[in-house]
This record gives sequence, structure tokens and C-alpha cells, in this order.
Amino acid sequence: MKPFFALLILTAVSITTRAMDADGKYRIIAFGAHPDDCEIQAGGTAAMWAAKGHKVKFVSVTNGDIGHWREAGGPLAKRRYAEVQEAAKILGIQTDVLDIHDGELLPTLEARKLLTQKIREWNADLVLGPRPNDYHPDHRYTGILVQDAAYMVTVPFFCPDIPHLTNNPVFMYYPDRFQKPNPFKPDVVVATDSVIEKRLDALDAMPSQFYEGGANGHIGLVPTEPEKKKARARQVRDGFARRYENQADRFRKDLEQWYGADRGAKVKYAEGFEICEYGAQPNKEQLAKMFPFHKD
Amino acid sequence: MKPFFALLILTAVSITTRAMDADGKYRIIAFGAHPDDCEIQAGGTAAMWAAKGHKVKFVSVTNGDIGHWREAGGPLAKRRYAEVQEAAKILGIQTDVLDIHDGELLPTLEARKLLTQKIREWNADLVLGPRPNDYHPDHRYTGILVQDAAYMVTVPFFCPDIPHLTNNPVFMYYPDRFQKPNPFKPDVVVATDSVIEKRLDALDAMPSQFYEGGANGHIGLVPTEPEKKKARARQVRDGFARRYENQADRFRKDLEQWYGADRGAKVKYAEGFEICEYGAQPNKEQLAKMFPFHKD
Amino acid sequence: MKPFFALLILTAVSITTRAMDADGKYRIIAFGAHPDDCEIQAGGTAAMWAAKGHKVKFVSVTNGDIGHWREAGGPLAKRRYAEVQEAAKILGIQTDVLDIHDGELLPTLEARKLLTQKIREWNADLVLGPRPNDYHPDHRYTGILVQDAAYMVTVPFFCPDIPHLTNNPVFMYYPDRFQKPNPFKPDVVVATDSVIEKRLDALDAMPSQFYEGGANGHIGLVPTEPEKKKARARQVRDGFARRYENQADRFRKDLEQWYGADRGAKVKYAEGFEICEYGAQPNKEQLAKMFPFHKD
Amino acid sequence: MKPFFALLILTAVSITTRAMDADGKYRIIAFGAHPDDCEIQAGGTAAMWAAKGHKVKFVSVTNGDIGHWREAGGPLAKRRYAEVQEAAKILGIQTDVLDIHDGELLPTLEARKLLTQKIREWNADLVLGPRPNDYHPDHRYTGILVQDAAYMVTVPFFCPDIPHLTNNPVFMYYPDRFQKPNPFKPDVVVATDSVIEKRLDALDAMPSQFYEGGANGHIGLVPTEPEKKKARARQVRDGFARRYENQADRFRKDLEQWYGADRGAKVKYAEGFEICEYGAQPNKEQLAKMFPFHKD
Amino acid sequence: MKPFFALLILTAVSITTRAMDADGKYRIIAFGAHPDDCEIQAGGTAAMWAAKGHKVKFVSVTNGDIGHWREAGGPLAKRRYAEVQEAAKILGIQTDVLDIHDGELLPTLEARKLLTQKIREWNADLVLGPRPNDYHPDHRYTGILVQDAAYMVTVPFFCPDIPHLTNNPVFMYYPDRFQKPNPFKPDVVVATDSVIEKRLDALDAMPSQFYEGGANGHIGLVPTEPEKKKARARQVRDGFARRYENQADRFRKDLEQWYGADRGAKVKYAEGFEICEYGAQPNKEQLAKMFPFHKD
Amino acid sequence: MKPFFALLILTAVSITTRAMDADGKYRIIAFGAHPDDCEIQAGGTAAMWAAKGHKVKFVSVTNGDIGHWREAGGPLAKRRYAEVQEAAKILGIQTDVLDIHDGELLPTLEARKLLTQKIREWNADLVLGPRPNDYHPDHRYTGILVQDAAYMVTVPFFCPDIPHLTNNPVFMYYPDRFQKPNPFKPDVVVATDSVIEKRLDALDAMPSQFYEGGANGHIGLVPTEPEKKKARARQVRDGFARRYENQADRFRKDLEQWYGADRGAKVKYAEGFEICEYGAQPNKEQLAKMFPFHKD
Repeated sequence: MKPFFALLILTAVSITTRAMDADGKYRIIAFGAHPDDCEIQAGGTAAMWAAKGHKVKFVSVTNGDIGHWREAGGPLAKRRYAEVQEAAKILGIQTDVLDIHDGELLPTLEARKLLTQKIREWNADLVLGPRPNDYHPDHRYTGILVQDAAYMVTVPFFCPDIPHLTNNPVFMYYPDRFQKPNPFKPDVVVATDSVIEKRLDALDAMPSQFYEGGANGHIGLVPTEPEKKKARARQVRDGFARRYENQADRFRKDLEQWYGADRGAKVKYAEGFEICEYGAQPNKEQLAKMFPFHKD
Repeated sequence: MKPFFALLILTAVSITTRAMDADGKYRIIAFGAHPDDCEIQAGGTAAMWAAKGHKVKFVSVTNGDIGHWREAGGPLAKRRYAEVQEAAKILGIQTDVLDIHDGELLPTLEARKLLTQKIREWNADLVLGPRPNDYHPDHRYTGILVQDAAYMVTVPFFCPDIPHLTNNPVFMYYPDRFQKPNPFKPDVVVATDSVIEKRLDALDAMPSQFYEGGANGHIGLVPTEPEKKKARARQVRDGFARRYENQADRFRKDLEQWYGADRGAKVKYAEGFEICEYGAQPNKEQLAKMFPFHKD
Repeated sequence: MKPFFALLILTAVSITTRAMDADGKYRIIAFGAHPDDCEIQAGGTAAMWAAKGHKVKFVSVTNGDIGHWREAGGPLAKRRYAEVQEAAKILGIQTDVLDIHDGELLPTLEARKLLTQKIREWNADLVLGPRPNDYHPDHRYTGILVQDAAYMVTVPFFCPDIPHLTNNPVFMYYPDRFQKPNPFKPDVVVATDSVIEKRLDALDAMPSQFYEGGANGHIGLVPTEPEKKKARARQVRDGFARRYENQADRFRKDLEQWYGADRGAKVKYAEGFEICEYGAQPNKEQLAKMFPFHKD
Repeated sequence: MKPFFALLILTAVSITTRAMDADGKYRIIAFGAHPDDCEIQAGGTAAMWAAKGHKVKFVSVTNGDIGHWREAGGPLAKRRYAEVQEAAKILGIQTDVLDIHDGELLPTLEARKLLTQKIREWNADLVLGPRPNDYHPDHRYTGILVQDAAYMVTVPFFCPDIPHLTNNPVFMYYPDRFQKPNPFKPDVVVATDSVIEKRLDALDAMPSQFYEGGANGHIGLVPTEPEKKKARARQVRDGFARRYENQADRFRKDLEQWYGADRGAKVKYAEGFEICEYGAQPNKEQLAKMFPFHKD
Repeated sequence: MKPFFALLILTAVSITTRAMDADGKYRIIAFGAHPDDCEIQAGGTAAMWAAKGHKVKFVSVTNGDIGHWREAGGPLAKRRYAEVQEAAKILGIQTDVLDIHDGELLPTLEARKLLTQKIREWNADLVLGPRPNDYHPDHRYTGILVQDAAYMVTVPFFCPDIPHLTNNPVFMYYPDRFQKPNPFKPDVVVATDSVIEKRLDALDAMPSQFYEGGANGHIGLVPTEPEKKKARARQVRDGFARRYENQADRFRKDLEQWYGADRGAKVKYAEGFEICEYGAQPNKEQLAKMFPFHKD
Repeated sequence: MKPFFALLILTAVSITTRAMDADGKYRIIAFGAHPDDCEIQAGGTAAMWAAKGHKVKFVSVTNGDIGHWREAGGPLAKRRYAEVQEAAKILGIQTDVLDIHDGELLPTLEARKLLTQKIREWNADLVLGPRPNDYHPDHRYTGILVQDAAYMVTVPFFCPDIPHLTNNPVFMYYPDRFQKPNPFKPDVVVATDSVIEKRLDALDAMPSQFYEGGANGHIGLVPTEPEKKKARARQVRDGFARRYENQADRFRKDLEQWYGADRGAKVKYAEGFEICEYGAQPNKEQLAKMFPFHKD
């Protein structure tokens, strides 16, 4: 198969960003390893896209069935499914969970085909996912699977039962803190101040992971007295707020570039995304159209 | 197993570059993911080696059976097999295709053994392959498989049915444009001006991929009028010529180092290769012997 | 599953270094691909820990059954098992070998679970392993498997039959010489001068790999005359001594930082370790406690 | 898990045949290895069920992409998909094809889950499939996969994302001619005389397999002259008619039992099914209700 | 490898039944698919062996983590582990559970090695397991795995890290009701009247499976009123008692052969076992020694 | 794919036995699990075919690398490879060994393709293999793999890189003693009296398995005194002679049918083969032509 950059010359297929839908709306699909990863990483931007009529779908590649210190298996998978449905309602998006055991994801051909099918069915313009370097093996293998699908979605006779995409989507990564072999560097940043309460509400809708502490939680996190319950809820919500604040600080220069020095300096909560080298390669103008929030 | 650099001390086996054959000829084997990748990446250098009597073999790790927008499966695999045979005849080399589905390559033990067998059967001095970061999953996994074979070819009781190599070959990568986690950096460059027509002829011999556009092509690329057919053929050929020109520009400094400032500045078409850290590590002099074109 | 750095906020679980045992002793487990890799990479530090009463275990992930030029299979696996037992006795540690074929390690779920079980059973504070870039595929996949276990050891319902670790261990890499995608950089260095004879004795106890030359050896390395036998033994031992000397030179600056300029300048034999970004992230003070050798 | 016959005692779940739908209609799902196997084996009975308002779905477990002597791959898969859709229209049923390569089916966990999902989504009362002994490996492994799903469809936390069946369906086999280890023996037979033209029409709608001869066909089967084309079509249709006649003769005694001596003796075309020992075990009365054709 | 019956001639290894231990005690290991299968199938005979000082171990090949209608995952696996430990205490035996997901067992090489290791570690004279035809896929694949280990336990360099058995154990099957391809036929039967209360107590110790109904149970089986609770417990216990009564009736002729007409006619509760053709083939006298209950 | 017996009607491909070669010679390929199984099971008939100019090839599906009590791994694989080459020379046939670990064969797709390729490359009229029920897992899985290839060898686009067979070969099984689910029943028997010394010589050429006792042997079988060595050699040879005598007795009735009562009663050494139901189904006359020994 010819190296990617030859395509420009040899075919008539656009390999940069596809045109929007006829209705001028983008279609975004985000993959996370567990039923909470997309919500944490892209919940704010998702809510903002949704508010403008763009179509967003979150897909958890595993069912999250070991993501708790006391519960596990199918009952937990069902609980987490209900939680992401609730979060999706709050954010104004759709959501889906694949039936793969949490902690057991591998970059198999079967999983590659499942992701390819999801991207095609959603007719995506933009695909989000984790980088293949992150602390959890499921995160890393989700990253690899998204990469492995990045070109195959355009190949007609890979998964021939589902129409291929004639325009390759843009693929982008969520931020992480890992430095090796190379650190995350955002290609676009989004101020999520306008939806911060909504996106925190969405996280509140997933108590199994946050209020109760998920796989590394313990009974001490789940008080019974109303006072302490309230305090715990506040602690979790504040923790996430602080996280997005820290992210704004970390991406401050990028915020100032995208929003102008003044506005950028004042952004309180931010999300950022890095272009994956596999998939369509948008220029800055195209990015600005896909993330149409900087002039709001 | 002892770390590689201990071998120098502990054994009598040469771990740098092996001596040439008794006849002073090198044996080169190049792996590509699909029946066209070796031809694109190393066709010029291969033709130049062949012209000097060195032995070159191209191996496509998959059979390329989804590499077209209208054809697929065994019939396409057979067509592409015939195309690479034709190209090989033009280049003066041998070629082989493994029976693995296109788009479905994984770094399995079975595939690792197949590559090990091919390298040993060819009694290779030099092995070429893609880096494990490239836009197509088959390219990446071909890169990983070549790495995974890079030391095992010397281990007598891995694949004990085929005599192991007592000298570890040099392993080198083809160029690509990807920057993360680190960009391609050529350790040797080759001016292919003298064989440019022959190497373009070889690519012309693979119409399924180039003239017709491969997996991302479409009916519009396949005109019926003679005029337009000619124009399309020219467009494809020019596209590739431009590619190797761009590559010469990209590697200009290296060309000037290898060919001297004057000659290097005038090279029009170039190929380049980067040493893989796994396998024998040739010094510049040894590289110059393996790529004996700079004094031509 | 929430990104790792959120854990600090959301749970009460310590994610940095765990407290020592009640007895003030650390528990260290080191993984190597073959029955000699841990001994080469960490034998000196292991002997020093053991001398202070800390508990060290070496685990070879494959059974080393193709690591010789003349012997192979189960008989070799048994010989190598006996060799690492002998080396462990010399170093004052424990050792274990998994029944996986040498040269055939893959990052499967089964292997990930085996490593998780070993780490948990040892109740480890510190886990050592190779980086995922090294010349031998078994080394690389051992590195990946250690990474893949790095968070899962803390998840209660992954391998629910073995109690999870409530404190995530620190994970560290052995040194290697590979530069891409990024070179090894030690976060801690250890002068092993005080145990150099013992650690070389431990390597002498593995003649299948060193005296006889392992997979790349040959009959010429195994003389029959007593004089030559002695010379060969000396050659091997000197080779390793030189290796640790070279390592001291390579890590000289780090040695001077950790031991002070004076002492650091005089260190003759050194080992070094780099923190893996997955797992607990110790600060320098915590490292100094885990490697309590710098004030000796 | 307790042996199956203990369930009667220990639980309140019916393990024989489930009650019909509220609307008195049965839901039948039939699995075949390739896009033509269900149509050959159960097309007549399916048409008769459909005519009475029962719901029938055919599922091909592979996409049939090597089932032709000249075509293959995705283009053939798409052609065959269209053929079974056409056949389904004629028979009055629904149909589905899984994206698994023809000739490459294995009894994997992924495939077991796919079949479980299909059975549950169809809310099946009756599941049909091949015996695990047949001449084609895909047939045998389809048989094994159906068996492997036969109990799991009732287990709530197997594939927890799809509601389990609270009544275990009946599982039945298609006829084959193989004698070892034990021959096919029909537990119910159906006279398909009333739908013979329709069921032959359905087979005519699959020219890739029958008119053109499928994997073992050849160019000689595909005449160009109208006369010969007609003759070939007639030959194929007659061949199938004869097949169902032979089957009526082979099952004559059973026909006489089910239809009475008189009517049974006159049945010209028949289909038959054998109860799989795994799944609900209907008695004769229950079978008569599920195959409500004997009094027509 | 030479066909099994050649071994008699060619080697000095006994291939029939091994001599007892020096202490005259047999060592029996029983495999079940889930944490309750061994207890149901062989609990009575196990208790009788244990009472005579023979050593019995039950091994569940999966962890049973989907065997309940309301609970699942690791928490259920832990509950079931505790239940089989409790049952083992009552029966006077040992027990073990492998960490493989319930409903997901496949006859892999990894699982074959695990069973081989268990049989060798127990130094077994007799191995029990299900036939490879049963209603649950985990049962069938447990049967296949036991068969796959049946000869390999004697091969020194299969799993070379664990000493092989120099005498091949006898392998026997539990009863089931399935007729195809051939029905279960007991080669030995055991009256368990003397331990019936103890063996029912052992089953009572597994409420997750029986009292609560396991995977096919429902809330209606778990009453809250003390009266109904008692009634439910009695119903479960009576159900099992009836099961072993039915089994005695089914094996009546065999009971009369083994116990004499008089005693055999009066046996109320029975277990039976069929010799697997793979493994040592005991004659009747040897069986009588291994099942030393018929003269009690 | 249409059931096999439909092929007669629908295609022009012969599905019974193929015509002989132009030279009137048959091409036979025999598969065994280990380097000795074909020699034991079909060595006599092979020698008789070879003597008449028919072409015979033996293929060992595993490399036999654990088939000894003292040796193993690659060195043993090489020894056994040399042994079967020696045996093949004696018998006048060709032989081949696949590089798959002894004791680790599974019915994978990769192995299915390897067997398909071997059958096609040999252009076989007749394929021999073990039944899928035998005492050694490698034997069983060899049986399954031969079955899995039995139809696929005729499908053009399965392994499209090797020309398919236009006539399906006959597939036959070797004898074994196992009764369940059904016993071996010879469809053809061959008196091997005329080649008994030669076929015993061939077995003598494999001392690793027979003289030394293979996996179940021991040091006591390998005497050092010349007298005892001779006695041991005689014991092994006599053992095999007795085996073929027993086989003649077991197949006596068949021998009398095939050779006439008189001659049949006198046959001393016999081999027998059973037709596999998958593959071409020869009638008795066709069998007599393929096994042209009964009139000798």
C-alpha cells in the first residue's frame, strides 16, 4: 500500500479534513478505555459541540467491570452503563459501551474491527482517543486500537459489510502527563468555562468511579451521615474543577494563542487535544472550524 | 540472555557487519507490508545493487488482498503477485509474497518465524523494513516483526529447522514523514538518478495500486479514452518522480556529505535508510561498502 | 478509569511510595526475560539490599530454553534453573523461573496475570524490569508486560484470587544503550564496589550463558586444557567487571550527585535505574530510602 | 455450575420450551456457515413459518468471501449479502451476515458471544444450526459455536449488555449424511410441498453459489447462449428439487408418523430437524406446536 | 510418538495403575468447570476416600464469576471460593480454584499446562473430570483439557519445571445424561449412603449455587421469612438427595455387580465413574483397590 | 456453501477419486503428529507403493522436540529429523517435518493452511492421518487438522498462492484401539509381509523413539554392553513385528475379504485404513486401484 502522502498525488480522495455534513454539523466520536474516560477527557468540549448542534458520541471500549473496590463483573458493568447514559443525557450526546472485560483489552483484530465499525457507523469527521502511552494498559491499547483503525476506516474491503468513509477523519489525542517517549502537546485548546457546571454534573452522575473512588477507593470514602456525604460530594467536584483549572494553566500559552492574550489569560477551565499523525492532518484554520468555540 | 553489547566480549561471533560472500556480493532482503511497499521505498537502490551483481529480494508480508477500491480477495492477491513479479523482472531482483490477509497483520509468533525463515534462507547481510511508526497498521506491524526477528535470526534453536545466521545482518528502515515519537533520520542516502526510469517503470508495472489508485482510488481514475489514459499514466509517473525529488531535497545535506558538496547538490532523485538499533551496527565505512554507489 | 493523577484527589490510597514493612525492610522483585538478565542488570544492588536484610526476588519470565548454541529445550531450561538458584544463593536472594519458551514471549493476558500474581505474592515495594526497547524481543515484551502490570497490581478484581496491593509499588528500568525513541536516563545510581566479587561470582555460576557463550557461543569457547579453561573463565569475569566499570563512567555525573563529588569520582562499578512513569513516583528522598546505600 | 437436569429442581425457570409470544408467534433463528446454508437446509420450513406469521431470521456466520471459483473477497461478500437479502424477501424472513472470513471460522470466544447476542436480540424460541460433524470446517465450527451458545444465552452475566433469555430456546440440527460418530436422526419432519416453488426461487436468487457453482464451479457452468443458460438454470433447480425428494424418501417413516400413513406416503419434498441435547428438550407435543404444519 | 499400546513393549514404565504410596494411600484429583461441579459429582466418594486416609483434591477450572443471577465478577468468585473451602472442610479434602473467567474456558495450551501442573503437583493416581459432551461449554472444554493432559503428565519435557509422573494416572469421567455420540457407562459405582448427610451438608455450604439458584435463579428463590427459608433449604437438600437416589436406580445393575445382588439392591444413593480411554487402563481388580468401598 | 453431496449435481468437478497421473502413478501424503507416527502406521504400505513407483511423502506436523526422556528442544528436533530422513531412504519415499513444538499442537488456522499447502504441493490423490480420537493430544489435533483441510484443498481462494486441487483427494485414517465414540473399522487392509524387514529396518533407524524409549524411556533401556545392546535392539524389533502380527489378527476377516480366504488366512503382518467421511468417497474398486497390492 502506498505511503500515505502519496495519496494526494495519486487519488482524488481528500485526505485532509472532510467537508461538514450538508447541515453544516460535524460528527465526533470519542473513544475511552472505561465508562468515564471520555467524560473526564472531553466532556466539556462535547457539551459545547452538542449545544451548537454537532453530533457527539462517546464509546467506552471496555465495560468497566473491575473499576470498583467492592463491586465487579456484570452488575458493575450495568451500573456503569447506566451512569454513562445519565452523563450523556446531561451533556446532550450519545454513548455506547463495548462488551470487553475491563483490564483485559488487547489490540486484537476483532477489537480493531469493532472500532472501525463504530467510526464508520457514526460517519465521523473527528475521532478522539488516548495516546498509546498512559498509566493503564487499557488506555494504551485503546490508543493503539484507535491508531490501528485510523487508516482502515477508509479501505472499502476492510469490514466490507459497513460502508467505508470516503474522507479520512481527523484523529486527536486527549492530554496526559507522561513525558516518555515524548510529551503531549495540544494542537487545539478549548475553554470550557461556559459549561463547567454541566460537565461537572456529568461527572457527578458517575458515583461508582468518583464519589466511591473506583478501583482504588475504599469504604472510608462512602460516609453515611448526610453532612459527610455532602462534604465528600463537594470534595470530588472540587477535585475535578481543580483539575481543569490546572489544565488551563498548563495550556495557558496555547489558550492565549487561540483566544487572544486577554481572553486567554482569563480562561479558568480548559481541555486540549493533539493531532494524531495517522488520519487527516487539518491545518489551523480547519481546526478552528472543527472546534468553533474561539470566537464565541 | 545477555545484553547485546556483552556479546563483543563473550563470544567470538562478529556482531557488526558480516563479511561479504566469497564472490564479494551482498545479499539484501527487504520487507514491505504490501505488494508495492518495497518497490516504492527501495526500488531504486535495489536496481543499482542488482546492476552490480548483488542479490536482492523483496518480500511482501501481506498478500495485499484489500488494496483496491473495486477488487479484493484472492483474485486481487493473484493480480498483485503478478505485478510484483513483473516489477522484480524490471529491477533485476527476486520477490515473494506471504499468504497473510492485507489489513490483518499482527505481530504473532507465527509471523515472526516466517520472517526469520525468509532472512535465513536468503542468508542476508542486510535487511530493510518500515519503522514501527507509520500510518498503516500493517506497516507498523511489519516494522515490529522485522525488529522481532532482528536478533532471533542468529539463535540456533529458534526455528531449528533452518540454519541460523552466524553473522547478524544489518537492519535498516525506510523513510517516512512521521515525527513522533522521533523522526526518521537517514544514516545513508543513495542518488537513484541513474535508474530513475527503470524504477518508475517498475511502479508502472503495478497499475492496481497506482494507476487505478489502490484502496483509496475510484472509477474516475480509470478513464477509457486513450488520451485520458495516457494523461493518467503520466500523472502517476510524475507523481512518483516528484516524490523522489522531494526526498532528495529533504536529504540534501546527507547527499552532500555522502557525495561531496558538488555532486550532492545536483542529485535529483534520492532514497535514504536509517540503521535500526537492533541488529549489527555498521560504521560509516561499512555502510559505504554495503551501499557502494557513492563513488560511481 | 480515571486518569492516574486524579487518584490523589479522589481516594485515600497513597500513590507514591508505600511505607516499608513493619520491620523496616523493603521487598523488591526484579523481572528479566531470561535466567541471567536480572543477575546481569541488578545483581550488585540485589546483593547489597540482601546484606541489609531487605527481601529480593528475581523472576525470569522465560525458561531460557534456546539460550545456548548446543543445548536447548527442557534439559537446558533445567540447567539454567539450577544456575539461577546457585546465583541466588550467592547473592542472598530468592529466584523463580516461569515456564514460557525462550524466544516466544508475547504480551498476552495470561502472562500479564502471571506477573501481577508474582508482584502481589511478593508484596513488592519496588519492581524492576527492562525498558520496552531493547535488542531482544523477549526483553521488549518483558518490559511491556511489567508496564501492563504496573497499575493492575492495585486493582482488587483483576486476579481476584490474590490480594491486591493497596500501595502501588515503584517501577524502575534497567539500563540499556538504545537511543530511540529516547535514551535510558538513571534516576538513581548505586556503587557496587563493595559486592563486586560476589556479584561476579554469581555470574560465574551461570556457565551456560557466559563461559560457554549462550546462544551465540561456539565450541571454540569451551577449551579442554586446564590452562585455557582458566583463561576463558578469567576473560568472562574480566569482561563483566569492565562492563560495570564502563557503566560507572557512563553514570559518573549521577554518581557524583548521589555520593558527593569525591566519593562519586572514585566509584569503580555501578548500576543504575530509571523510574517508569507508570507506578508510584518517588521523589529523591524516597529513592534514597529505597536505595539506602549512599551513606554507607 | 450445576448439571443441567438439576435445574428443574432448584430453580423456577422453565427449561423445556418457552411459552410463545403474547401474540402466539414463535421466533426462530437459524445459523449457517455461509450465505446459502440456512436457505438450503431450512428454506422451506422457514417460508411456512413466515406464512403463518412466525418470525424467522437466517444468520450466516461467515461472509462467504471465498465461495466462488472466480470471485472472492469483499466484492463476493457483498454479492452474497445481496443474494441472501433477495432470498429472504422471497421467503418472507429476515437475514444477517457476520463479518468473518469464509474458511477461517474458529470456535473463539468472540464468535460465541456474537452468536449469543444474535440469539438474545432475536429473543429466540428455537435455534437451528449444523451438527458439529460435516464436511466443511466452517460447518463443523458453526455447529460447535451454536452448542457453545446453547446454555450461555440464559446466563445473565455472560454478555451482560444484552438481556439474557429467561427461557432456554430449543436447539435443533439440520440433516447431513455423515455416519460417524453417529448419524443424523430427525426428531421432526416437515413436508414442504406447499412452498417448494418459493423455496426453489429463493435458491435461484443465489446464482453465485448454484448457477455458477460456488467454490467448486468453473467457467463451463456459465454459458452465454440463452438456450444453454436456461438449461443450466433448470439443471440447478431440478437438482435441488431432487435433493428434497431424496430427503422425503430418507425420512419417509418419520413423515408417516407425523402426517399419518396416507399423507406421509405422498409427501414429495421434506425437511427434517434433530433436537440438540443442549438447550430445552421439547416433547413431541411441544414440537408439534413449534412446527405447526402437520395438520395443515 | 509411538501409539500408546506400544509402550508396554518398548519401555519399562508401567502404563496401568501405579502402585499406591508407600503409606498405602491413593492420591485423587478431581476437576470441575465451576466451584460446585466436583462437589456435586464426586462429593460422596471423596468423603469416603478421605475417611480412609486417601488424599483428595478438587480443582475448579474457572472461578465461577458469572454463576449467579444477581452477583458476578470478582466478588462472586471470592464468595464461591469461600464456599468450596467450606465444602472441602466438611468433606475432609483440599480444594483449589483457577483464575479463569466462568463461561470463557477454551482448550488453550496455557490451560492444558495448568492442569498438567496440578496433576503432577498432587502426584495423582486417579484424575476425575467431565466427559467432553455436556450441556455447558465450560464442562465440555474441562473434559477436553483433562484429556489433553492425560498423556502429557508423563512426558518429562512438557512443563519441565515440574517433575513428571512416572506412572500414568487413571482418568475417569463423571456421569451425565447425554446420549450422543455415546452415553455415559459407569465402570465403577459407589454407594454413598454412609456419607449422604455429610455430602449434602457440603452442598448446603454453597448457597450461591443451590439455595439461591445460581445463574438461573431469581429473587423468588430467596425468601425472607424464616419459615420459607427453611422450606427452601429443605427443597434444595431434598432435590439433591433425590438426584443421588435416581442415580442409584440408574446404576442399579452395576451396584448389584459391585456389591452383590442383595446389598446392591438396597443402595439408596450412588455415584459412578467411567474410565477414560486415555490414561492408564485399570482392570476390575485394580478399580476395586482404588475404590475400596465395596466390602465395607 | 452447499452441502457436499449437492456438488455432484451442481458442478462438473469429480468428487470421488481423481484419475491417476498421466504416468499411472498415485501421489500419497501421510500426516503424523511426530517424527515416527507415519513410519509406524503406514511404513509397510508406503514401501509397497514406492516399490511400484507411486509417490509417497510423510509429514510430521510437530518437530518432536519433547519426545525423549533425556533430550529435548532443537537438538532433539534435529536428531529426529535426521532419523525420519534415514527411514524415508529405506522406504523409498520423501519426508518432511513442520516447525511446531511437540506437545503444543492446536487446530489453528495457521496450521490448517500449512497442511493445505503440503497436500496441494504434493498434488495428492490420497491423504492419510490419525483419527481425532487417540491418546495423545497432538494425534487428535493432527486428525482434526487433516479433517479441516479435507475440503479446503479444493477451494481456489483458500491459500490463493498455491494452486488448488481440482479433484478432492481421498482421506483415510490409521488404525487405533479406541472405542469411543466409535471404533476404528478398516475399509482397506494391506498385507505387508513382503516388506516386513524393510519396514522394521525403517523403525530401527529411529533409535531415539524406540531403542531408547522416547518420552517414556529411561536409562535402563540403553545398555552399554554389546550383548545387552543387541538384545535391546532385538526386543524393539520383535515388539513391532508382534504389533503388525496382532494387527493382522485383528483385521483377519478383512484380509480374507481382500485377499481371498486362503491367502488372507496366511497373512502375517498387516496395515489397515479407514475412509474419512470428509473428502472423496472411493468405492471398493477404486480403493483396490489405489491400494494395488491384493493381486500381487
